[in-house]
Amino acid sequence: MSQRQAVESEQTNLLKTTNVTGPLGIIAGRGSLPTFIADAAEADDLPVHIVGIEGEADPEIERFPHTWIKWGEVGKVFTALESNNCNDLVIIGGVSRPDLRNIRIDLGALKALPFLLSLRKGGDDHVLSRIVQFFEQKGYRVHGAGDVLPELLVPEGALSRRSPSAEDEVDMAIAFDVVRTLGTLDIGQAAVVSGGYVLAVEAAEGTDAMLERCAEIKRRGRSHGTGKGVLVKAPKPGQEERVDMPTIGPQTMVKAAEAGLSGIAVAAQHVLITEYNRTIEIANERKIFLYGAPWDESDT
Amino acid sequence: MSQRQAVESEQTNLLKTTNVTGPLGIIAGRGSLPTFIADAAEADDLPVHIVGIEGEADPEIERFPHTWIKWGEVGKVFTALESNNCNDLVIIGGVSRPDLRNIRIDLGALKALPFLLSLRKGGDDHVLSRIVQFFEQKGYRVHGAGDVLPELLVPEGALSRRSPSAEDEVDMAIAFDVVRTLGTLDIGQAAVVSGGYVLAVEAAEGTDAMLERCAEIKRRGRSHGTGKGVLVKAPKPGQEERVDMPTIGPQTMVKAAEAGLSGIAVAAQHVLITEYNRTIEIANERKIFLYGAPWDESDT
Repeated sequence: MSQRQAVESEQTNLLKTTNVTGPLGIIAGRGSLPTFIADAAEADDLPVHIVGIEGEADPEIERFPHTWIKWGEVGKVFTALESNNCNDLVIIGGVSRPDLRNIRIDLGALKALPFLLSLRKGGDDHVLSRIVQFFEQKGYRVHGAGDVLPELLVPEGALSRRSPSAEDEVDMAIAFDVVRTLGTLDIGQAAVVSGGYVLAVEAAEGTDAMLERCAEIKRRGRSHGTGKGVLVKAPKPGQEERVDMPTIGPQTMVKAAEAGLSGIAVAAQHVLITEYNRTIEIANERKIFLYGAPWDESDT
Repeated sequence: MSQRQAVESEQTNLLKTTNVTGPLGIIAGRGSLPTFIADAAEADDLPVHIVGIEGEADPEIERFPHTWIKWGEVGKVFTALESNNCNDLVIIGGVSRPDLRNIRIDLGALKALPFLLSLRKGGDDHVLSRIVQFFEQKGYRVHGAGDVLPELLVPEGALSRRSPSAEDEVDMAIAFDVVRTLGTLDIGQAAVVSGGYVLAVEAAEGTDAMLERCAEIKRRGRSHGTGKGVLVKAPKPGQEERVDMPTIGPQTMVKAAEAGLSGIAVAAQHVLITEYNRTIEIANERKIFLYGAPWDESDT
């Protein structure tokens, strides 16, 4: 069954293949993936409980059993998970770095204070690995979204009608090099290369903002024309892929088209795709490619 | 004589120390450095001829003997230099990558076509090195702005009243690491690190745009508060410093303050400073530091 078919048929063969037995706890940041996974779980008769971070998670989560928490309400997270017998967790969806002034400290947070303070330093990867460890130390099993729902992972090869040209392949190779090198510094997961020239490198701003910048750079004529250039996304070496896998979706595709790029290439099996059908539809409408490049984990 | 004194006294001891004998040709891109160097040269009784790139060079160059050229008027550049006996050249001031549609091809450009086409690929450093080689092959001597005017180079130590704190030193060290690593990929010359976290990496957008992004990231709360974080600028390894030295000035300082940074650290003797007095004044008013870090060329 192809990914596309699986997605169209509402994921009937998904969570059964994992070792998730009890109710699935979903800690939800931004985006549509939390409810997408919850729908798939319920289609598999697996109960879920979503813990949504206020200001981040989509109100859509209220379709499911849920608990809203504010940043810092650590105790409330564990109460929600325990009272719903969730020993298996998926932590999914982007979050902003919380403004320390808006954090509500509950008793659970006080107990976890040394842990919370340790999060204030270091890059994203450090922070996210620590969060996974924190849950694991409390006995939870943390699963990646791609582990419970393999259809969310970008497969190898061209997913769009268009494929990378010889020139795109050159840009792709440079961009993958850049992303690999950046990864060793715990910086971003993406770069844009056009005509052999590194247009942009992602750090804290996120991929959409980086693509908007590329569009602006092209408008100012500081580039090699439109209809060329490749966005590459790949994980960082040693990245905690269970909670921090690079993600693309319809928005990424629209922004890449607006930046006049030729296409998007990602590390196959190591990048999540949200709203698969709509994403591919946009790629085909805008005549840009989406390509899953073979990714050797030992390269990173 | 300190840099500050030298700048205040209008550079009286500058070009005499170099081996520039005849009239000095200045190929001028954006900014105030071309006329700054021309003023210094004339104060030293050294005649100049400025070749200004239309749409890039400041109209101020018209205070001096000058020739305006459009992108691609290669023949006109050499005619201007030859008829003014300029064998010594300074190529200074940022330029945008020209839009190929706006290039005017003259006879000299046709003769130089293989060279011009070779510029269409590759990173900035490749392009700029090739331009220097091109002039050298024609018998010109190309000097760096810092060679003819050493006062333009950032010296070692704190130039502002404020100095880097212990925390700033940590951010600085990380940012220098990032810039060094990026340099090996011929990407940008700058990065911003705040609280150990890489906020932004510069590629084609330029330092000002990167700092505006940092301000935006801080506004969105995706950072570690204001009054912290360091911008670092340093050359790339093997960079053609005669034509592509990283530059800071008043605008950099204002943008760094607006981004809520603690200060700016640069590779001492390898970064140019424009409008020295005004730059330091802004640093002191905004209470941010400007620091020249010892830079070992063999590190790069």
